[in-house]
Amino acid sequence: MACLARTLRRGSGDLSEELSGGVGGAAALEPLVAAVLSALADGAALRGGPLPAGLPQDIAAAVAEEFLAGEGGGGAGGAAACPGAVLSRFARLLAAGSADPAHPGCAAHLHCPPLAVAVAADLAVSALNPSQDSWDQAPAATALETLLIGELAGMAGYDPGRAAGVLTSGGTESNLMGLMLARDRVLGAVTGRRVEMSGVAGGPRPRVLASAAAHFSVQRAAAVLGLGEDAVIPVPVDRNLRMREGELAALLDSCRRRGQVPVAVVATAGTTDTGAVDPLRACAELAAAHGAWLHVDAAYGGGALLSDRLAPLLDGIGAADSLSLDWHKLGWQPAAAGVFLVRESETYASLARRAVYLNPADDEEAGYPSLLGLSLRTTRRADAFKIAVTLRTLGREGLGRLVDACHDLARAGARTVQEHPRLELHAEPVLTAFLFRYVGGGAAHEPAALDHLNASLRRRLLREGRAVVGRTELPGEGPGRVRLKLTLLNPHTTPAEVARLLHAVVAAGRAEEDLL
Amino acid sequence: MACLARTLRRGSGDLSEELSGGVGGAAALEPLVAAVLSALADGAALRGGPLPAGLPQDIAAAVAEEFLAGEGGGGAGGAAACPGAVLSRFARLLAAGSADPAHPGCAAHLHCPPLAVAVAADLAVSALNPSQDSWDQAPAATALETLLIGELAGMAGYDPGRAAGVLTSGGTESNLMGLMLARDRVLGAVTGRRVEMSGVAGGPRPRVLASAAAHFSVQRAAAVLGLGEDAVIPVPVDRNLRMREGELAALLDSCRRRGQVPVAVVATAGTTDTGAVDPLRACAELAAAHGAWLHVDAAYGGGALLSDRLAPLLDGIGAADSLSLDWHKLGWQPAAAGVFLVRESETYASLARRAVYLNPADDEEAGYPSLLGLSLRTTRRADAFKIAVTLRTLGREGLGRLVDACHDLARAGARTVQEHPRLELHAEPVLTAFLFRYVGGGAAHEPAALDHLNASLRRRLLREGRAVVGRTELPGEGPGRVRLKLTLLNPHTTPAEVARLLHAVVAAGRAEEDLL
Repeated sequence: MACLARTLRRGSGDLSEELSGGVGGAAALEPLVAAVLSALADGAALRGGPLPAGLPQDIAAAVAEEFLAGEGGGGAGGAAACPGAVLSRFARLLAAGSADPAHPGCAAHLHCPPLAVAVAADLAVSALNPSQDSWDQAPAATALETLLIGELAGMAGYDPGRAAGVLTSGGTESNLMGLMLARDRVLGAVTGRRVEMSGVAGGPRPRVLASAAAHFSVQRAAAVLGLGEDAVIPVPVDRNLRMREGELAALLDSCRRRGQVPVAVVATAGTTDTGAVDPLRACAELAAAHGAWLHVDAAYGGGALLSDRLAPLLDGIGAADSLSLDWHKLGWQPAAAGVFLVRESETYASLARRAVYLNPADDEEAGYPSLLGLSLRTTRRADAFKIAVTLRTLGREGLGRLVDACHDLARAGARTVQEHPRLELHAEPVLTAFLFRYVGGGAAHEPAALDHLNASLRRRLLREGRAVVGRTELPGEGPGRVRLKLTLLNPHTTPAEVARLLHAVVAAGRAEEDLL
Repeated sequence: MACLARTLRRGSGDLSEELSGGVGGAAALEPLVAAVLSALADGAALRGGPLPAGLPQDIAAAVAEEFLAGEGGGGAGGAAACPGAVLSRFARLLAAGSADPAHPGCAAHLHCPPLAVAVAADLAVSALNPSQDSWDQAPAATALETLLIGELAGMAGYDPGRAAGVLTSGGTESNLMGLMLARDRVLGAVTGRRVEMSGVAGGPRPRVLASAAAHFSVQRAAAVLGLGEDAVIPVPVDRNLRMREGELAALLDSCRRRGQVPVAVVATAGTTDTGAVDPLRACAELAAAHGAWLHVDAAYGGGALLSDRLAPLLDGIGAADSLSLDWHKLGWQPAAAGVFLVRESETYASLARRAVYLNPADDEEAGYPSLLGLSLRTTRRADAFKIAVTLRTLGREGLGRLVDACHDLARAGARTVQEHPRLELHAEPVLTAFLFRYVGGGAAHEPAALDHLNASLRRRLLREGRAVVGRTELPGEGPGRVRLKLTLLNPHTTPAEVARLLHAVVAAGRAEEDLL
């Protein structure tokens, strides 16, 4: 890349000190953005496949070489003379060293390839840097987030006039918020302002009921909130990781009998591994009957709301007290694009905050709105913007087509697995992911050997830069029972490409089997 | 702007469905990014000043018109035919409706104008979408964050070989993490795994000591953690909001006498309103003597580490158990660019997590590193990248010059205030902010009238689109005692522009005085 110094030289200031805002911001950004786009193309070509070949230490060494070479920064040597050069080198390094979810061979996680239109929208947000913690840092962005939240609430079956919500960093933060509001509503009534959390010293032990396949952020939230990880009671699941409603009913009854307080039921709409959706309507009824808050973690499955075909899976979601949705999963946004919603805005009470430098009462009386009390964060990027642009560009229908395309792809992949003698399907996909494993040819392997084989073939694919395949273990199977996973989030991938990926899995399995 | 449809038409897919990754991603982004840059320039020109003129409802109405006009999205009408058009319209709306910290008249909050090079770097992150929760979603980004954290730890006076840390969404999340680790270390030792938080039922009441001028996120963190907001004991401050160390000593003693557990001392390095830095060395000694964790909230003041002139203010910071730094404040990054650091990596223990689908033990044994246990989040954008590019482009020295320029600007602004008969300076700036108020001409106003005057003149400046000036109240002055605030974070602003801004304050004050 040619040195951008001349292009950037405007005025007498240091070339690298240009700002992205103001009337000159766009002009300052232009050559830098061009350098990034060119580095992205170069880096993708250099990488070739879905991720860089090599061991983690090889990649770390390449990164360290670049990072440490520039130590001392612009003060000494070339960097100051040519500020775009550092940017170019680092962007190429990042592209060449990424696991790229836009590559059909990268299909492990709920890690979506972003839409170009969402990424371009996000550039406007970076450049203008609105912060949602006060109106006077984000006049238009405050209004836009409020409108978007209303629309998403309606999509989830809430009454937009009564619901409330906020953009979050993802399901983990949204789940924490849901459980915090639940804790404060349910326990606040029992012990007043300060939370009585321990059963040791007398008070009733607070409990959270979530399926054994719920995301680990539920336990983590319980730990953060001081309830303790072991406050979470795992509700047994069926073979495809869907909560058994009879077990939930029995556990809620047993909670009551032991004098414990069921603070919340967490239902999962789209488990990370299988996309299973818990029986939402039954969860809502049981939670209500026991005075518990219902939080639905629809971080993954919330994308089904966009699809006429899949939306019925989420029947009953509108009865949840709170919801997590992640548009950086089935919504094709760059991270972060989490959404937290509550059905009734009054339930937000324990998060309300008055900060005299951000939302003084007389400013609010004068009509200046504040989103501060809706979030656990203070400074907050305007992540609503890229979602709004995407939603208006594609419409719910357009996004629904992408969801359906990924669903079709998962079904096609599952068929390929079923038809292959060396692969074993765990269960039909519910959304866009499925579990499977390599079982080898000839005589059956011992369970431990099979686990080793699947874990090793996955690492081989990573090491060879050939594929990023997921892995997990199933609750109830005991530790170490490795399953492989494909999570199909790239709507442009073809069934033939998924088949090719599965054949690469088999080839890696054979190679590992030869080493046994 | 001309319709981009033709430019975008590649292959047979829907034009608006292009992805940002893969070998074709850069080409797909190019026309969209060009549309955004052109919309940013148009929007800034339309806006003219530091923020749009009008009342919040006027701005909200303009946003609603655009947002609701496109309802139904690409499925019907023009949007599908011309996907770049939606993006352009929304980006222009956002630019025209922003409070732009790159404008010299926008100087209210710790809301910095980002450097163009950081914004361009952030575009690469959006496009590639690495997620820091597992290595196989972010091979190079994992290595880069680890290197950056080491360098920042060294800059703060930690031993990089023993320290650990992570990028966060900002000081609020970093403060929560610091207090959570403090709670788990100090209370874990008292009551085992589950946290005994209430004094009501017997156990010792946990306490957090923070200055009366500490950020409200300290109270909020105490609420989230189940300690209760009232677990935070406010330590009295001096006139410029610096913690009085004698008072801290006395309060710690009194805690002990009452059988309370001082879980943490929170020292502020750079209060939001005055930039005051608590006596860090004394805080460290007192915390250690009482078995309390020392968390230093250097979200704002951490920027002083970049400046040879100001770094001595943070003397003793390396003795903190944990630290918050925000590069989206004195670091010119777009949000979010928070950093959380601990002095000893072992103290991170209570955050460690094993998720079988993200960091299985055998993958870690095989050399695959995981940052999962370092963060409260799961999906996590690679915010380290833009900081690394900025640091290597400008170097610590280059960034230090920007810090010093803002410090000089604040001092110049304070002199202008002192010299103006209608303005009253609260105190000399420590970092880059100062408090003042309009006192009017002629006979002295009653306190309530003065408060009304200052609050009203600020809203007048907002309404007229003329300036974004901060406001706050001082602890100890009682509610409603309004002070105005300038936070100078734009290194390209000149002292003459700051003087012009202060004259606009006086003009607005005169206009409001005429209405009394």
